[in-house]
Amino acid sequence: MANTFGHLFRITTWGESHGGGVGVVVDGCPPRIKLSETDIQPDLDRRRPGQSSIVTPRKESDTVQILSGTFEGKTLGTPISMMVKNTDARSEAYGEMATKFRPSHADYTYFAKFGIRAWPGGGRTSARETIGRVAAGAIAKKILREQFGVEILAYVKQVQNIVADVVPDKVKFNAVESNIVRCPDSVAAKKMISLIERVRSQGDSVGGIIEGVARGVPPGWGEPVFDRLEADLGKAMLSLPATKAFEIGSGFGGVLLTGLQHNDPFRMKGGKVRTTTNLSGGIQGGISNGETIFFRVAFKPVATVMHEQQTVSTDFKNTTLKGRGRHDPCVLPRAVPMVEAMTALVLVDHALRHRAQCGR
Amino acid sequence: MANTFGHLFRITTWGESHGGGVGVVVDGCPPRIKLSETDIQPDLDRRRPGQSSIVTPRKESDTVQILSGTFEGKTLGTPISMMVKNTDARSEAYGEMATKFRPSHADYTYFAKFGIRAWPGGGRTSARETIGRVAAGAIAKKILREQFGVEILAYVKQVQNIVADVVPDKVKFNAVESNIVRCPDSVAAKKMISLIERVRSQGDSVGGIIEGVARGVPPGWGEPVFDRLEADLGKAMLSLPATKAFEIGSGFGGVLLTGLQHNDPFRMKGGKVRTTTNLSGGIQGGISNGETIFFRVAFKPVATVMHEQQTVSTDFKNTTLKGRGRHDPCVLPRAVPMVEAMTALVLVDHALRHRAQCGR
Amino acid sequence: MANTFGHLFRITTWGESHGGGVGVVVDGCPPRIKLSETDIQPDLDRRRPGQSSIVTPRKESDTVQILSGTFEGKTLGTPISMMVKNTDARSEAYGEMATKFRPSHADYTYFAKFGIRAWPGGGRTSARETIGRVAAGAIAKKILREQFGVEILAYVKQVQNIVADVVPDKVKFNAVESNIVRCPDSVAAKKMISLIERVRSQGDSVGGIIEGVARGVPPGWGEPVFDRLEADLGKAMLSLPATKAFEIGSGFGGVLLTGLQHNDPFRMKGGKVRTTTNLSGGIQGGISNGETIFFRVAFKPVATVMHEQQTVSTDFKNTTLKGRGRHDPCVLPRAVPMVEAMTALVLVDHALRHRAQCGR
Amino acid sequence: MANTFGHLFRITTWGESHGGGVGVVVDGCPPRIKLSETDIQPDLDRRRPGQSSIVTPRKESDTVQILSGTFEGKTLGTPISMMVKNTDARSEAYGEMATKFRPSHADYTYFAKFGIRAWPGGGRTSARETIGRVAAGAIAKKILREQFGVEILAYVKQVQNIVADVVPDKVKFNAVESNIVRCPDSVAAKKMISLIERVRSQGDSVGGIIEGVARGVPPGWGEPVFDRLEADLGKAMLSLPATKAFEIGSGFGGVLLTGLQHNDPFRMKGGKVRTTTNLSGGIQGGISNGETIFFRVAFKPVATVMHEQQTVSTDFKNTTLKGRGRHDPCVLPRAVPMVEAMTALVLVDHALRHRAQCGR
Repeated sequence: MANTFGHLFRITTWGESHGGGVGVVVDGCPPRIKLSETDIQPDLDRRRPGQSSIVTPRKESDTVQILSGTFEGKTLGTPISMMVKNTDARSEAYGEMATKFRPSHADYTYFAKFGIRAWPGGGRTSARETIGRVAAGAIAKKILREQFGVEILAYVKQVQNIVADVVPDKVKFNAVESNIVRCPDSVAAKKMISLIERVRSQGDSVGGIIEGVARGVPPGWGEPVFDRLEADLGKAMLSLPATKAFEIGSGFGGVLLTGLQHNDPFRMKGGKVRTTTNLSGGIQGGISNGETIFFRVAFKPVATVMHEQQTVSTDFKNTTLKGRGRHDPCVLPRAVPMVEAMTALVLVDHALRHRAQCGR
Repeated sequence: MANTFGHLFRITTWGESHGGGVGVVVDGCPPRIKLSETDIQPDLDRRRPGQSSIVTPRKESDTVQILSGTFEGKTLGTPISMMVKNTDARSEAYGEMATKFRPSHADYTYFAKFGIRAWPGGGRTSARETIGRVAAGAIAKKILREQFGVEILAYVKQVQNIVADVVPDKVKFNAVESNIVRCPDSVAAKKMISLIERVRSQGDSVGGIIEGVARGVPPGWGEPVFDRLEADLGKAMLSLPATKAFEIGSGFGGVLLTGLQHNDPFRMKGGKVRTTTNLSGGIQGGISNGETIFFRVAFKPVATVMHEQQTVSTDFKNTTLKGRGRHDPCVLPRAVPMVEAMTALVLVDHALRHRAQCGR
Repeated sequence: MANTFGHLFRITTWGESHGGGVGVVVDGCPPRIKLSETDIQPDLDRRRPGQSSIVTPRKESDTVQILSGTFEGKTLGTPISMMVKNTDARSEAYGEMATKFRPSHADYTYFAKFGIRAWPGGGRTSARETIGRVAAGAIAKKILREQFGVEILAYVKQVQNIVADVVPDKVKFNAVESNIVRCPDSVAAKKMISLIERVRSQGDSVGGIIEGVARGVPPGWGEPVFDRLEADLGKAMLSLPATKAFEIGSGFGGVLLTGLQHNDPFRMKGGKVRTTTNLSGGIQGGISNGETIFFRVAFKPVATVMHEQQTVSTDFKNTTLKGRGRHDPCVLPRAVPMVEAMTALVLVDHALRHRAQCGR
Repeated sequence: MANTFGHLFRITTWGESHGGGVGVVVDGCPPRIKLSETDIQPDLDRRRPGQSSIVTPRKESDTVQILSGTFEGKTLGTPISMMVKNTDARSEAYGEMATKFRPSHADYTYFAKFGIRAWPGGGRTSARETIGRVAAGAIAKKILREQFGVEILAYVKQVQNIVADVVPDKVKFNAVESNIVRCPDSVAAKKMISLIERVRSQGDSVGGIIEGVARGVPPGWGEPVFDRLEADLGKAMLSLPATKAFEIGSGFGGVLLTGLQHNDPFRMKGGKVRTTTNLSGGIQGGISNGETIFFRVAFKPVATVMHEQQTVSTDFKNTTLKGRGRHDPCVLPRAVPMVEAMTALVLVDHALRHRAQCGR
């Protein structure tokens, strides 16, 4: 009972890996926005399996259909239903999964919760679930860009111990998309790709960090005390599969500084209140302050590896399991559009909430 | 418009630093639970200013009153309203705050959002707001303990660069409470206290990390895809003032491992499905797996320091501001009960949500 | 931004009359319930246009597809997405609607709200929108019947001035379905059918009253103070198209009695607390008391009539409009399953909410 | 778990009849609105017991305190907490209520739901609960009046079989307040007062109908498909104690007309789209159309009467109960401000929701 996200710009996702398809209903979208499948498909293509040599090879075109909520190419203000059919549903490849819980997967916990699970392809726990988020996020990004002048970006900041050098204030989308790992630091990108290829050949997997950026957010978005902007961003990111950590601005590193070192001094600049540093990450007291918002999200290494591992069977006996078939060595390149989508969904929701209460 | 937290066990907090008081309404509490002020006050005392030499000296007894929702010492199932009156409301000490925005405080962002702010004591942005959370959290902890066998604990894990050695599975409440910094590693605790005292004498402040622990959570709590248990814990923690980061289980450190290294093998133990390691931090796929849940929260150093700093005035001119009066060198000892409270609020809400859908 | 209904058993509907289709996502359904399209289709067939000579002749089979949320014939506890494709989308029949607002339709108000409207077939304001509700309601009725022993029924109580004689405690489903107007009083039913046929031949339409009944609801469901059971039932009914009034138990008629006359005396019966009369309609203080719940809903006559009427054009000039093409003389027979669906959705949601807080 | 009402302008009420007090937290109020207790108290005085000879004589001044959310006489945008202390808490007068369930009261259903009840004064089921609603409604009315030009009114339309003649478009507040029964038709008012006095002297009670009016609502408020404006108004009214029915515009009477008779023709008037009749009651398709909104709410006769009645004891034996002490012959005069409050709460919430999605 928690497949809905957002208060005013609200999405509800549905779908299992091997059912009829996956999709999303977007409720609360402002009316009269130009919208067609061509606004959505590019982000789905960035999320798609099989897009490069370093991601899972599942072959699906993930073609989106808009089923409702638009008329003559514009949004109606009514729910926008979008759907992607499942086509590559090879249950047989997952045979052993029917009777064994994959270590560090959600197989066991879903069974513990519901007393039933759709084992083919992981069912609802499959990353296919994020298709609905990315489709909805594409609309959110468009609204933010066109109606609020806000730009959303994400990129791979770190793969295992390889750290990229990127400036959140300046990084460009084209630089992110210039290589298959989606890291705008081309030197680090090469190393990352080599690492992922090596790990893939070993039948293993590797995790890393994605950095998310929102530029142009005006001062005033965020709803204390509970729906602080960073709290909602944190929740959004930690709701993505395989995430283990979130930090904004100075993050964990900020605890090494004193208050005097950590404070961002205010100065007037171009008639606006600005800060001369940005350890706050663009948010103070849960509300945007007009500076660039940036944060980092840790993704653990993908759980499915091509090695024999200890586990337990569905009849509760000790056993072992070895991953077979398709294998995703690193989720990060495909997770970039997911992080962008969730960022956009949080921000557009807060934009509307702010407008509701404060009238602008 | 976001002063309510939780879906079924739902709290609404209210109050400014210098208004009539602060409080909370708890809605959805199960009926027939023994409850009086003596269940609440101890946690408020742990949160209270002036409790030791290393926290802010504001003098308030923070005495709680239960105004509704109980009858003859038991909960009625109706809303429980609790209130703490404000007594130490010395507006004059904050005079300069009326006309200048404190750096890295919420002063400016509240003004940017609302076009008005209650400057005495920071108004709604004061840590006094957390009184309502801690009071509600005391009820949540009691329900978890008595009805679900779940124990909640938190403690100071790190102050600046001093890291404590603590085992989440074994740490005891008495060890946490054995010193004023609330760190169960007594060697580290001494160093932490010295550090905070030194920083205080310099008119500066210092941050750190609190670790939160939940033991005894049964498998099955958590509501994917959006209200994953770690997502709701992350949001809860990041909704606390001064937090910048959250990680669960292996957290950011987990990205250095491969999938094979990171996976927690399942083994049967005492008739139960258990894991032999716990890098997952007790949650897989957003649902508890029966292992100890543990996570870390970073608190930045308190923004108010006794030094001259650059800032901007409320008539938008560059100026400087030097902190005066009371000064909190380290929020961590008082934040421990806040982390416990938010953990308990998330868990009791998920316990009820799980019972609603799955019937147990 | 209000296409979601329910708190724990939560539905989100989508779809316009002439878009790709209409559908619903059901979130929060308990797991391990047997479910297939054959559980859903019968109620859709009762809602379908063209089912008899006295309803609108639009020809659509309204065949439902379950796209997610089940596995091997059982619910997973994950979202159940259901869809019906639009097939009879004859926009041309509605040509004049593009440029004129139909009197007492939602054409003008949708335009006033959103600045855009999907004029073919009324878009989102079409009764096709209720397909999602009826499909979701079929699941809700099944859960109530199988897990809680609750039976839901509705029937036509009145058409214009023809009033049926029905006893809510005893009426049977078969009696309701024994004639095309869905009135279990066969004498009244004949008169109603004649009346509707006459009105249809005059190109006019007629309204009436549907009575809804829930039998077997245990004492204790309902969530005061705002989500009283009758308040949620009232909202549910008034959210159906063309409804203007709702009353429960004694309703408007109860104001003619004194307190002494209106009170339902309690008596023990079969070891249970029962009432000897039921003017309360099964609900006291917003909570079910174990007696039969019954209520009435007024549906105004359908707005589209085959007569010339005064109206205004989309360029804001006075004009006239005459209905053409398909014409629904009376919505009541098709509204019966809608009333049942909304009743079931309210009750199952309250069953789960009660279980969450009170543990049974 | 349902003591919160509204989505964006959201109130949470708390309090039992004989606890520490009753109150409300208002979240989401726009900032910078002038507000003090003098804006609230007049409506509480209109709701107060003991205000005239025809209402319950309980003696309480019901003096409201604003505890938070304002600063220097203006709203902050933070939660507004308001409280009224309980002073006339004579438990002894209700002694027999401890062991017997009053017929047609919520005594039994609360016990059935929660397994516990606060019997003195009815606890949470007391009409004192509405104090919080009326206080919050006073703020909502002020916002509607000052920021949106909307005027809210309610009045007694019928007591038992005495029906007043009132024109919703023209009735004035002063006429409503010109007599103690709050009926603007002075001839009917006199008869109503006589009737209530007679019924009171007989130890009995009487119900009736209140009509609610909203004038000046612009076209476009309302959130189909579920949060239609009339659905939310209906829910709001049916959440008030003792209500049994709701109808808007033509209501139940509308079923006697044909479509041709019932339709409201559109005509241009003063450059605006208007209707020449208003059987719709100002709402079409769930959205306001710019005409006056008006509706009727039925209140059953108060359950407590000074006569011996059959009932059941708390140890489940047949018994009798005779009302003693204070006795409210007619709730209608005091319910008028309750109806106004709930109307205003619904409308201001919808005003903000409309602004959020549609930007104006």
